[in-house]
Amino acid sequence: MARSVDVPDLVKRAREGDPRAVARLISLVEDASSHLREVSIELAPHVGRAHIVGLTGSPGVGKSTTTSAVVAAFRQQGKRVGVLAVDPSSPFSGGALLGDRVRMQDHALDPDVYIRSMASRGHLGGLAWATPQALRVLDGAGCDVIVLETVGVGQSEVEVVGVADTVVVLLAPGMGDGIQAAKAGILEIGDIFVVNKADRDGADATAREVRHMIGLGEREAGAWRPPVLKTIASRGEGIDELVAAVEKHEVWARESGAGVLRRQLRAAEEIEAIAMAQLRGRLVSHQARLDELALQVAGGALDPYAAADVLVAQAGLAS
Amino acid sequence: MARSVDVPDLVKRAREGDPRAVARLISLVEDASSHLREVSIELAPHVGRAHIVGLTGSPGVGKSTTTSAVVAAFRQQGKRVGVLAVDPSSPFSGGALLGDRVRMQDHALDPDVYIRSMASRGHLGGLAWATPQALRVLDGAGCDVIVLETVGVGQSEVEVVGVADTVVVLLAPGMGDGIQAAKAGILEIGDIFVVNKADRDGADATAREVRHMIGLGEREAGAWRPPVLKTIASRGEGIDELVAAVEKHEVWARESGAGVLRRQLRAAEEIEAIAMAQLRGRLVSHQARLDELALQVAGGALDPYAAADVLVAQAGLAS
Repeated sequence: MARSVDVPDLVKRAREGDPRAVARLISLVEDASSHLREVSIELAPHVGRAHIVGLTGSPGVGKSTTTSAVVAAFRQQGKRVGVLAVDPSSPFSGGALLGDRVRMQDHALDPDVYIRSMASRGHLGGLAWATPQALRVLDGAGCDVIVLETVGVGQSEVEVVGVADTVVVLLAPGMGDGIQAAKAGILEIGDIFVVNKADRDGADATAREVRHMIGLGEREAGAWRPPVLKTIASRGEGIDELVAAVEKHEVWARESGAGVLRRQLRAAEEIEAIAMAQLRGRLVSHQARLDELALQVAGGALDPYAAADVLVAQAGLAS
Repeated sequence: MARSVDVPDLVKRAREGDPRAVARLISLVEDASSHLREVSIELAPHVGRAHIVGLTGSPGVGKSTTTSAVVAAFRQQGKRVGVLAVDPSSPFSGGALLGDRVRMQDHALDPDVYIRSMASRGHLGGLAWATPQALRVLDGAGCDVIVLETVGVGQSEVEVVGVADTVVVLLAPGMGDGIQAAKAGILEIGDIFVVNKADRDGADATAREVRHMIGLGEREAGAWRPPVLKTIASRGEGIDELVAAVEKHEVWARESGAGVLRRQLRAAEEIEAIAMAQLRGRLVSHQARLDELALQVAGGALDPYAAADVLVAQAGLAS
């Protein structure tokens, strides 16, 4: 039986720091519940304050260790912190996959740190849709900083993390990350590059390689020049410099106007995703007609474009 | 300057075996050109003959070697073969990423083997849309068999390969693939499991693990029981058995009616993707309005659902 939901009360409690209220709100948006719209309306007056820090990199570069160290640094400044760990390659959401994130347990008992994992819900585009909604909940709940962490450096990860206000790309020595990063287009979206595990052989070579690759493009006057830092997150080394770089980027983004543009872009993607989800809902409500059309297309009696026209007309969406 | 395109002539030449015509048709559908619909209409009478064999597995299991060996086996039967290699984690399409696919060069000079790679075009959902279109071209061009190969076993790969008539999941000993596969939901979609590199330690253990995992679910009478085979693709060992299993699955799918259902599902997804792309086109044609709404949402003055309503109405799509 569906529990009745008092959304205004949930938002009020989330803003007071009740982690269960935050969890419930994220579940409501992630499950695309009928309360989505109400949640969104209640949160609207409270969003836009959080600084969203995207953090991505290949498995093994030390993302969760770095996230944990960064969270600790922000906590020392007295900031409320949200962590959203997104895994586009996994169908599981919730707390399950955080089991191996031992380091994050440093913050498990801190009421001003909210940690959540999210996974792909079986449909391409699912995370592109759910991630901004979950960020909106954490933002509206009063987080000053949200660390948006993704697993891997694939195309999906780039898209997920690309919506952040500041994008941190994590690398490790000798992993051929440069090529991986270039392949996935992550060099273009990185605002800060970090070579973690800098006590390992090849750290300087990796840093040079990245500097070389990001230095290849010309930059306009006043443009942000991504720094390439070195850290040993497991010992907390270089984390203050990383946090300082994030704050410097935040100031630059605010003063240059680039920050507003990125938030506008993020909102535009969110609006489009919501509109598309609504239109999809209207299409698939004609499932019987779609099945019938699909059978004709599968048999070669109809081409899929003609079938799409019929479906669109049936749903009352013809132009 | 855009070249003028004679689609009926291209389809005619593709069906006669001209690889450049096939390449041009795939480029037309992949680039979402204005000729998409025409290509689709011209191909419609010729599609539905090819058997699509999906092949997926983690990097390093020997996918391209296996694909090459399977292609050789089908060629010995005199069949025309298409290979579509899809990499959702890469933004590059065309021939570029096939550079490392040395083994496939065995077939580079064979006019009855058409090889093509495709990559994600920077937007989640891009491949879900482009893959069926490219398969349709290869099918319509007269391929008897199409091997649809994906890189990795992530959620995107599962969705791409899930549209195949027969799904082959490739594993290798000692890679922890079982867990990876379970995580990505690939156990549910595999029709045939193959432990490649079967001369390595742990091949039997991996095969047992997979048998155990797929055996856990009850099956109805007459249901397909996925075989777990062992191959050494680099030496061609076990390939005949793999091809025999594919053919056995094809017969089962035809006789049980499961094949028609899968093709119907594939067509339904294709129709829906085309319809959604059209609707998206109508939404984004109101870019100025979207930008304006996004600025209001970013500033907290409007919630994204209300903004989506406005955008949908503006595009003439309100219900």
